[in-house]
Amino acid sequence: MLTLDKIYHAKYVLKQIIRETDLIHAPNINPEANVYLKTENLQITGSFKVRGAYYRISQLSDEEKARGVIACSAGNHAQGVALSATKSGIKSLICLPDGAPISKVEATKNYGADVCLVEGVYDDAYAKALELRDEKGYTFIHPFDDEDVIAGQGTIGLELVEQLPNLDAVVVPIGGGGLISGVAFAIKSLNPKVKIYGVQASGAPSMFNSVHDGHIERLESVSTIADGIAVKEPGTNTFEYCSKYVDEIVTVTDDEISAAILALMEQQKLVSEGAGAVSAAAVMFNKVPVKGKNVVCLISGGNIDVTILSRVIKRGLLMSGRSCSLNIELVDKPGQLKKVSEIIAKLGGNVTSIHHERANEGSDVIGCYLRIVLETRNYQHIEQIKQALKDAGLKLV
Amino acid sequence: MLTLDKIYHAKYVLKQIIRETDLIHAPNINPEANVYLKTENLQITGSFKVRGAYYRISQLSDEEKARGVIACSAGNHAQGVALSATKSGIKSLICLPDGAPISKVEATKNYGADVCLVEGVYDDAYAKALELRDEKGYTFIHPFDDEDVIAGQGTIGLELVEQLPNLDAVVVPIGGGGLISGVAFAIKSLNPKVKIYGVQASGAPSMFNSVHDGHIERLESVSTIADGIAVKEPGTNTFEYCSKYVDEIVTVTDDEISAAILALMEQQKLVSEGAGAVSAAAVMFNKVPVKGKNVVCLISGGNIDVTILSRVIKRGLLMSGRSCSLNIELVDKPGQLKKVSEIIAKLGGNVTSIHHERANEGSDVIGCYLRIVLETRNYQHIEQIKQALKDAGLKLV
Repeated sequence: MLTLDKIYHAKYVLKQIIRETDLIHAPNINPEANVYLKTENLQITGSFKVRGAYYRISQLSDEEKARGVIACSAGNHAQGVALSATKSGIKSLICLPDGAPISKVEATKNYGADVCLVEGVYDDAYAKALELRDEKGYTFIHPFDDEDVIAGQGTIGLELVEQLPNLDAVVVPIGGGGLISGVAFAIKSLNPKVKIYGVQASGAPSMFNSVHDGHIERLESVSTIADGIAVKEPGTNTFEYCSKYVDEIVTVTDDEISAAILALMEQQKLVSEGAGAVSAAAVMFNKVPVKGKNVVCLISGGNIDVTILSRVIKRGLLMSGRSCSLNIELVDKPGQLKKVSEIIAKLGGNVTSIHHERANEGSDVIGCYLRIVLETRNYQHIEQIKQALKDAGLKLV
Repeated sequence: MLTLDKIYHAKYVLKQIIRETDLIHAPNINPEANVYLKTENLQITGSFKVRGAYYRISQLSDEEKARGVIACSAGNHAQGVALSATKSGIKSLICLPDGAPISKVEATKNYGADVCLVEGVYDDAYAKALELRDEKGYTFIHPFDDEDVIAGQGTIGLELVEQLPNLDAVVVPIGGGGLISGVAFAIKSLNPKVKIYGVQASGAPSMFNSVHDGHIERLESVSTIADGIAVKEPGTNTFEYCSKYVDEIVTVTDDEISAAILALMEQQKLVSEGAGAVSAAAVMFNKVPVKGKNVVCLISGGNIDVTILSRVIKRGLLMSGRSCSLNIELVDKPGQLKKVSEIIAKLGGNVTSIHHERANEGSDVIGCYLRIVLETRNYQHIEQIKQALKDAGLKLV
């Protein structure tokens, strides 16, 4: 059974290993609330997962430690288990689907784990992990549905009540529900008045649906930019804790998550992964009732692939008017490109790519298309450039 | 005269305003040293500049405060002065060249300053600021060459010796030299054995040249991605302090700075600006002798434009083999594009853009060109894809 005692014990055990991550004031995330960020993206391994993994491993018997541990994950849990096992001087084996990004495989190896690449998807890797557990006697470290793991994650709750004594609400990402179970249990045990809000991606609302319907439900499929919380089915324990201790669960879309990732980068200089940013997204887009409250968004991790980050920035720039693409139909004669580029240069637009194409089935036979991508200042700037092009007799399509 | 007393006093005054930013372990920046990051990018306003500005303003007489302050900057100093003045309940006016990025102008206004856009470049804005100072009686807040400002920046030195008692070396960005002057004075006063290394961008080596030649030199022009340290001439005071207290000054290139920005994002989940990342770049690329040492890289700020960040990521991906572009010469007949895309898909390359063009002067009359941009895993992966294309009889150009 989970107790506050156990979470305090976890805190004591973890003290030598983890960072007590900073709580950072972030007034611009939502000017109507007093927002703070708990920066678990700055935790060692780049996510909170190491807390639960290390505490779980610390509680193994000597005999279990001698046999080693096994886990199945392509992400933060893998790195948490790998580092924890290495720091504890024991062997770890991580099963991964063979399509896992090479960067994650490398990171897991670098933390000292052996990696077993399994043909297929996550479920295949999971089956293989259980098979190896039974065959070799490894202890399986569950990513969320385990009371030691939940106690480890709960240490964040203890830190929060110390770091912000006048705390009103905490907003927490939910995947399998281990993090929010621990945090909610710890905080509600100490101060039941503090509200705990959970956030899922709208493309993976397994706990949202389950708690709403009053029983565990399994999703057929999940699809979200927040891969760290793309979990098909809550755990038995985490479902109970969420039902009992979480005040409300909400969902956010991938566009809202992207906007939050960008805001955290621009305003707070923090890199967060999709799963880590859902809490900020929920507060930014007023999904949770925190107006006038001292609210903490738990930024659970920062392990985002830079290619994804690059796309998030691109989309964010488009959505905020700092980039735009123009399609212009030109008469196909000399001097047209010069005309267009003069207008854009004069108004301070910065051309980043250009594509010029002769007539196709959609245009006049003497016409051609020009597609230009520009860096711009804001929406007014885009309108100003468009208007100037129109005033010069050019046709925007 | 600068004294340790003054820096301690600045620390006392700043306590209510600034964050004592975290020192974060960053072992992967250079595995041969024990590297920590002082995260002034997480300081309020996104840079250390608020320390010097606030302390300087706090030392004004009531009469001076009543008249208000003026500064000239398009960047971090502007935001530091604006916020400091507002927090002190006094008026501030910031002169900016009219070409300053709209985001910086808005940020400065949001911190409560009046903004005066001056036609021309930085030097014009500076002249205008001095003119307004003389005309209206405002106090001019110098960005670096002022002892109160230097004392404010020096508080970082006091924090460092507390945060890492067994400190061996500190690596500090140099623009005008205010930051390193304060940090070096504070630390050398307490422990002369700690080494202080300064870093400039190779496109703006004003202090580097001046200290090397033993007298202040002015650069004709500066050009670097690290706009926050693109300073043409050191200050009289800062030149003296650097000559006396800094052990060595080195330079880093824009490519090295870009690689450091990317490493800080990927490994440490921190957004840094070019000027902020030069210290990490110097350690990453072994420009300073810190092997086996406990070394702090001072990450001075994080105010980087996301469009620049997006370019840095793009370049970093290319340089690390995680993106590549292929130019393929095809025979112009049906089925060619299918052949190419099948090979790439089979090997797990992810196409992000494609451009297909008929014969031009460089190709056979029956030929055409295909230019494909791909997301790849690493250099081996790129080679594997290239080889497979060649094996299928395709000509890479």
